[in-house]
Amino acid sequence: MNPDELQQHLDAAVALAEHAGPIASGYFRQRLDVQDKSRGVHFDPVTVADREVERFLRAELQSRFPGYGVLGEEDGGENTEAERCWVIDPIDGTRAFITGMPAWGILLGLTERGTPRVGVMHQPYIGETFSGASGLGARLRHGGTETTLATRRDVALASAILYCTHPDVFILQDDRTAFERVAGACRMTRFGGDCYAYCLLALGQVDLVVESSLQSYDIAPLIPIIEAAGGVVTDGRGGSAAQGGFVVAAGSPALHAEALATIAL
Amino acid sequence: MNPDELQQHLDAAVALAEHAGPIASGYFRQRLDVQDKSRGVHFDPVTVADREVERFLRAELQSRFPGYGVLGEEDGGENTEAERCWVIDPIDGTRAFITGMPAWGILLGLTERGTPRVGVMHQPYIGETFSGASGLGARLRHGGTETTLATRRDVALASAILYCTHPDVFILQDDRTAFERVAGACRMTRFGGDCYAYCLLALGQVDLVVESSLQSYDIAPLIPIIEAAGGVVTDGRGGSAAQGGFVVAAGSPALHAEALATIAL
Repeated sequence: MNPDELQQHLDAAVALAEHAGPIASGYFRQRLDVQDKSRGVHFDPVTVADREVERFLRAELQSRFPGYGVLGEEDGGENTEAERCWVIDPIDGTRAFITGMPAWGILLGLTERGTPRVGVMHQPYIGETFSGASGLGARLRHGGTETTLATRRDVALASAILYCTHPDVFILQDDRTAFERVAGACRMTRFGGDCYAYCLLALGQVDLVVESSLQSYDIAPLIPIIEAAGGVVTDGRGGSAAQGGFVVAAGSPALHAEALATIAL
Repeated sequence: MNPDELQQHLDAAVALAEHAGPIASGYFRQRLDVQDKSRGVHFDPVTVADREVERFLRAELQSRFPGYGVLGEEDGGENTEAERCWVIDPIDGTRAFITGMPAWGILLGLTERGTPRVGVMHQPYIGETFSGASGLGARLRHGGTETTLATRRDVALASAILYCTHPDVFILQDDRTAFERVAGACRMTRFGGDCYAYCLLALGQVDLVVESSLQSYDIAPLIPIIEAAGGVVTDGRGGSAAQGGFVVAAGSPALHAEALATIAL
């Protein structure tokens, strides 16, 4: 895809994610006890928000980009053997969402032959959009201001700040031990964050994110944002992270290499 | 203090915390590497923000409320034996602040003979103000909308969502074991949050916050918000939490009793 085409896809992805924002935020911080009265006992705001956001994005993408594949959390894959494939996580960070913490986001990405090329994370309650595409750089829009995203460079592992959504994301004992090794070698570890932590890495506020048990749609839309800001994202052994699993995101190639050597899976 | 007086103090506290917002957010997400060039190697945005916010609030409070005590994180206590005492945490959640996560806040509270009566938490990046006072209820203002805060009722411990800023806040082994007991009895535990977690409890999104190693200024301004929303805050043995230490905040008296019995310090 040439830069003009990439830019068009990036603009479309940003516009669609922002358009979907009010659908999600309409369910954010809704009280179960209030909603249950009109909608029945099993109403779950995050499930409804997930479905409605994905349905909206799928319909728009399929009408504007015929022939493209679509992979989403809720309704799975359609035509995913196509060269270009949209990837949707309608609400990344459902536990943040259901606890009222605005660290969740709407993720929308585009892969080309399996490689993430365009990515958007939109947080409608705060009003932030993080976006990036291969060779086009990465940006944060918040209110009327736009900031160029750039990872923090020249940070060694011993000075690094590490984020991870929750210590329990590591199901396998080997993964947990690997995480504890890298966390022990860092200056500071913080929990929480989901997609927001990867965006803080692209923003140069955080140096490492190490997680496991990710799905493709959890990480593929974030990879172009991080890479276009100067960071590196791989799986736990240095291969592509686009399929999820154990993921290591770092602000620089040197820090990534140091983290991977410490993780030593 | 009668309701009119309380309201006046609440209004003043909200106005001052919001006025201090831009001082803090001016340093939020500033890059150390950028700032260092002009200000010298030891420049630390959160330390500077902390000092400037507290200096501003202290000066305003001392000129508007002569004879009142002031207790702040940065410059300690002045005239704290006075009947009425302002309590300031200029940036609660410094680790959130330095990692770019907008879950920190400016805390300002008023105690009367040691009892917290008025409290405000202002998050300037998101543009939220949580506030409350004894008998006057609690509110969240975000953009142009105001929401009445009310904790979630009728949640048993087994269904509760628990927040805690970080597992390492429990220095004493007994405290850590007590936390693990209560966390194990809850439906879900999330880490991160600082003052924001207590506000989510007041908002009815979270049911419990259990932490240790708190200072008076970390918790005293949050107590009136939680209590005015229907929650209960004590130390680990059911006494006043106004001095900090081990703190148990719950959305209802019944849940608080159940949590305290499980913590069993």
